[in-house]
Amino acid sequence: MPDPHLIALDWGTSNLRASLLDARGQTLETRSAPGGVMAVQGGQFGQALLALCADWLAQTRCPLMASGMIGSRQGWREAPYLDAPTSLAQAARQLITVPVMVVDGRAERLLHIAPGLRCLDSAGEFDVMRGEETQIWGADLPAHSCCVLPGTHSKWAWLGEGGAIRHFKTFMTGELYGVLTQHSILGRLMVFGAEPGASQHEAFAAGVRLGLRGHAELPHTLFAARTAGLMGRVAPEALPDFLSGILLGAEVGGATAGAEPLQQVTLIGDEALCQRYALALAIKGLAVSRASDYATTRGQWLLAGAAGLLGAAA
Amino acid sequence: MPDPHLIALDWGTSNLRASLLDARGQTLETRSAPGGVMAVQGGQFGQALLALCADWLAQTRCPLMASGMIGSRQGWREAPYLDAPTSLAQAARQLITVPVMVVDGRAERLLHIAPGLRCLDSAGEFDVMRGEETQIWGADLPAHSCCVLPGTHSKWAWLGEGGAIRHFKTFMTGELYGVLTQHSILGRLMVFGAEPGASQHEAFAAGVRLGLRGHAELPHTLFAARTAGLMGRVAPEALPDFLSGILLGAEVGGATAGAEPLQQVTLIGDEALCQRYALALAIKGLAVSRASDYATTRGQWLLAGAAGLLGAAA
Repeated sequence: MPDPHLIALDWGTSNLRASLLDARGQTLETRSAPGGVMAVQGGQFGQALLALCADWLAQTRCPLMASGMIGSRQGWREAPYLDAPTSLAQAARQLITVPVMVVDGRAERLLHIAPGLRCLDSAGEFDVMRGEETQIWGADLPAHSCCVLPGTHSKWAWLGEGGAIRHFKTFMTGELYGVLTQHSILGRLMVFGAEPGASQHEAFAAGVRLGLRGHAELPHTLFAARTAGLMGRVAPEALPDFLSGILLGAEVGGATAGAEPLQQVTLIGDEALCQRYALALAIKGLAVSRASDYATTRGQWLLAGAAGLLGAAA
Repeated sequence: MPDPHLIALDWGTSNLRASLLDARGQTLETRSAPGGVMAVQGGQFGQALLALCADWLAQTRCPLMASGMIGSRQGWREAPYLDAPTSLAQAARQLITVPVMVVDGRAERLLHIAPGLRCLDSAGEFDVMRGEETQIWGADLPAHSCCVLPGTHSKWAWLGEGGAIRHFKTFMTGELYGVLTQHSILGRLMVFGAEPGASQHEAFAAGVRLGLRGHAELPHTLFAARTAGLMGRVAPEALPDFLSGILLGAEVGGATAGAEPLQQVTLIGDEALCQRYALALAIKGLAVSRASDYATTRGQWLLAGAAGLLGAAA
């Protein structure tokens, strides 16, 4: 195996994913465990890390770089938010560190943690991200572009000069879908787990069009996911897709209304979710491109390089 | 006790409320039980009715009139939706009936059930109501007025000539508040049950202003109920009110955007909820009036009269 140069940790709410990178930032090996911030009891983050990659730490002296919720107040140590606009170079100067006890309780190594970002939206409310900033920088997007990271809480980010993150917005779309299907009256008429087919696709597209049109009155628009079932306009097996479409349409409609005109959006993240977003964005008339699957690891590599950590190890 | 002239049943999803009315439609007695449509097992609606007011049925021959979910597909018998615009007189011609077995399985009496209403919104989706139409007619509102019935699913209704219900919109605001506080990440930072005070009132008003401003991107605007907690801008004890304000602001913002200009709204329903709505509507700059607490019973009385049921009993 070529010499490892970085242990890169994508440490989120649910999962811990570790990658061993070579001298050019290429992945040598990846591992993951359900050792996310919410899964780790009593602050035992060091144990969670060792459980996943004690052998890597024993075999190599290369630096450790993490991004994600591990730097939140509920994480290992809080890395204060940086105020957007923020470039990768600025973030690299604000890494925080925690000691990792590898042998006999001695502080053998330092784990570097990327800070999250904070911005004020036009209504004067804060928005925050942790982990997505690293993914965005790793996607190496052109200046002045816009990207979307689908997820439980999707993030829209608008970049400035040199790929700096100028501002961003969180949409609770995925979580709304979850609570509405599992806990609201909308789920009662639904049948889940149907094989995706034409009727699911059609229901999703109809939902997107409705959400785009009705995003300004979403608490009303959502009710269509009940009446369309009641009236037999959408089959129970396609109702989950109809609701998903309404919510994605509302997100795309809301994110693009009032903002600067947009022609193109880059999607970053999970393949299946990105496909849904690509459909919704296409219905809105936006061109869609996709970023590399390795954006997070790439971002951690770039952060470590900008912080001078790779030179020290090489 | 004066002669009873009508047994009026407000029979919803959760509760069954029965009122005994005199010759002028005044309430002689009221009773209620958790015998709503969802609580009654195996279609035993007759038993639920007898459990609450068998003595009334034994002592008097007056007619029975019901409105609400009892006329839905999950209810006793489905009363098909009438298409709005619909007047009280039109609905009174479309009552359906079910036999009530009072003694020894003989069909002694008829229960009359009011039909629900249906309308198409501007996006071509159906909206529905069951029970609220009777409440609205009972509130005796002026022609061309607008009223709001707060609740788990609040209803906005716009009236035409002679108090006919021209069109209406459902907003899932109350249910959104429920699922988001109980099941989403927003609830995690909240402390519930605090004595309402200045900070709750202030947080509610701030939420309303935010919801009014940000209703077009609600899945983003909602996230402020997390960041305001994270950043210490709203205390945990006031966060539920902040979220409630955001949702009510989004409802009022959505319902009034694009619709015909509105100066005045009549609120009908639960006192505490109506107070919250009155605040939100006032922040939007709308004048608010309140309808009688007895709108439902009054509507049932008027429907029974228009259907000729009261003449028969008197």
